[in-house]
Amino acid sequence: MSNKIKSLDELYQLALRDIKGQQGSIVIYVANIPQVSQTNDIIGNSLQEWLPAWFKDNGLELQPNKSTQKFPDFTAIFEDDDNVEMDIKCWNADNTPAFDLANFESFYQVVYNSPDKIFAKYLVIGYKPNKHGFTIDEIYLKNMWEMTSNTPTKPINLQLKRERPYAIRPYNFSRNPDSCFEGPIAMVNAIRQAVEIYPLETELPFTPDEWYAKMVRVIKAKGYDK
Amino acid sequence: MSNKIKSLDELYQLALRDIKGQQGSIVIYVANIPQVSQTNDIIGNSLQEWLPAWFKDNGLELQPNKSTQKFPDFTAIFEDDDNVEMDIKCWNADNTPAFDLANFESFYQVVYNSPDKIFAKYLVIGYKPNKHGFTIDEIYLKNMWEMTSNTPTKPINLQLKRERPYAIRPYNFSRNPDSCFEGPIAMVNAIRQAVEIYPLETELPFTPDEWYAKMVRVIKAKGYDK
Repeated sequence: MSNKIKSLDELYQLALRDIKGQQGSIVIYVANIPQVSQTNDIIGNSLQEWLPAWFKDNGLELQPNKSTQKFPDFTAIFEDDDNVEMDIKCWNADNTPAFDLANFESFYQVVYNSPDKIFAKYLVIGYKPNKHGFTIDEIYLKNMWEMTSNTPTKPINLQLKRERPYAIRPYNFSRNPDSCFEGPIAMVNAIRQAVEIYPLETELPFTPDEWYAKMVRVIKAKGYDK
Repeated sequence: MSNKIKSLDELYQLALRDIKGQQGSIVIYVANIPQVSQTNDIIGNSLQEWLPAWFKDNGLELQPNKSTQKFPDFTAIFEDDDNVEMDIKCWNADNTPAFDLANFESFYQVVYNSPDKIFAKYLVIGYKPNKHGFTIDEIYLKNMWEMTSNTPTKPINLQLKRERPYAIRPYNFSRNPDSCFEGPIAMVNAIRQAVEIYPLETELPFTPDEWYAKMVRVIKAKGYDK
């Protein structure tokens, strides 16, 4: 038996065991002379680079999605298990999470053709900057609906650009996990409502109701009823 | 006698001797596990952080300009010499330099009150990304007028934002050093012309001609005639 990561849950358990609470740092070498970075704004990007490299060291290859427009970023290639669509998100846990969960329009189209991507998993890492770098404070393995919610003005937390829906953003799931969507059906219903309110860039060969019906069918087949 | 850097020229010579041609890399550690960064877009920012830290190790403190709007970024504090206003710029030497030399409007205002800042020095580093990080390929110590020029459509290489002048950008000085401005007077004349063509955000208590006359006076007093 190899020591390779065999499932997304094993990956999550490994992360909890080996990196939660640990210190991290970014060191720049020139001519072998090291200097520790004090700049907070490269921590997130650096972590997003470190994690897939570390998973690879532990036998799990993450295949990047070839199209950068497509959702989600990676497919985790397991030897003895199904491949799993997944994404990695990092945020400064001194602040409210504000990363993009997905590009709205791309997500809406992609899941119509590949409804299983509704169940794409997010490995989410909350770091806190400190004097020498950062610590890894929070680690989650979540579905999209466990991280977003409606807002006072919108059916789902949508970032708009020039009046068009641009990205699905998180709710403060880390502080209030119970105020996110109840389940995937509540989320796809909110997305249908958002498409009815905000016009999309592209004309699509299906209506919001057809989209919703297809999503609900697939979600119920997976055993969810909310 | 200490080993401290005593002038900007010593700093330049040290950089040429110790880092030109050298390999650099960026390593991210989490829980002491290192992974080498493969992302090109953090090299410039990382170098811009490494250099002042390395100068400090060599006894030269760069005092950051308190206002981020102001020009230039640093004052070099020399023990036995005058303090010198300076900036550090890094660019990917596989491409044409495209960093901002200065915010146009801030530069225009700041040098009216502190004309010596016209002579602020730029330490400019050209790096080339490679498999394990980057190499330091080019190092220059230059004045602003040695790095920019007019363009086919503008008296000086100006980046516009919403029709307003935003930043002074470099000419490809690394490939064609002789096609930059002949000297500081040619540059301030070009800036005066640009102010006459492009309206500024702020109303100022001096005219472009008054600004130009003051600059020329100070520049000639330093012995330049072009």
